[in-house]
Amino acid sequence: MNKNSVINFAQKLALINEHWSPKVVAQLNDYQLKLVKVKGEFTWHQHVDTDELFLVIKGSMDIHFKDRVVPLTSGEMYVVKKGEEHKPVATDECHILIIEPSGVVNTGDAGGELTADNDVWI
Amino acid sequence: MNKNSVINFAQKLALINEHWSPKVVAQLNDYQLKLVKVKGEFTWHQHVDTDELFLVIKGSMDIHFKDRVVPLTSGEMYVVKKGEEHKPVATDECHILIIEPSGVVNTGDAGGELTADNDVWI
Repeated sequence: MNKNSVINFAQKLALINEHWSPKVVAQLNDYQLKLVKVKGEFTWHQHVDTDELFLVIKGSMDIHFKDRVVPLTSGEMYVVKKGEEHKPVATDECHILIIEPSGVVNTGDAGGELTADNDVWI
Repeated sequence: MNKNSVINFAQKLALINEHWSPKVVAQLNDYQLKLVKVKGEFTWHQHVDTDELFLVIKGSMDIHFKDRVVPLTSGEMYVVKKGEEHKPVATDECHILIIEPSGVVNTGDAGGELTADNDVWI
């Protein structure tokens, strides 16, 4: 990992071999860009202090909200607003880029066994 | 434009018919995500207060710095650090996503005729 070089998504994704474990690939001021491979159902949670952006690089996923389901596929992105309870779900493995401020924990206010280590760079 | 819906890159890019004119497609807290079609040489400039992220969606471009040239192609991204003088160049049309705080002007400290209107949403 070199914090000042070109980030190639395919090369970085090849280094990830677990689901729901965001890996930081770039820092933009106090924001981080994290690659994640997702499959199955994540936990309901919210981030009380920040919006969170999902950009789908490969595959498809759904973001469940209490009042709707937002389907996303490769080449699409969506901003989950601060304080919105959501649950990401992917039937098949999906590769995504998440953008949010440094320090945001993947399970937000929910915690639990799906909580990943934070600030892990690849 | 709906500020709370899915952003499909291909659909949004189809709405852009000029070069070097960033169009805002999403807001993440106080950051904006802007799609731009680039072709030719931009102007040397810097952003004295912020980093700036370039993500290439389609095509290839180079970011020239005073001491190096960084080539980028589809599926790659690069963070230009705060205060780094740079000049984007694309031989053929290239489609990119730029991420930076709201209010950042495309020509930074340089100004000039390539300065685009800011905060234009599509």
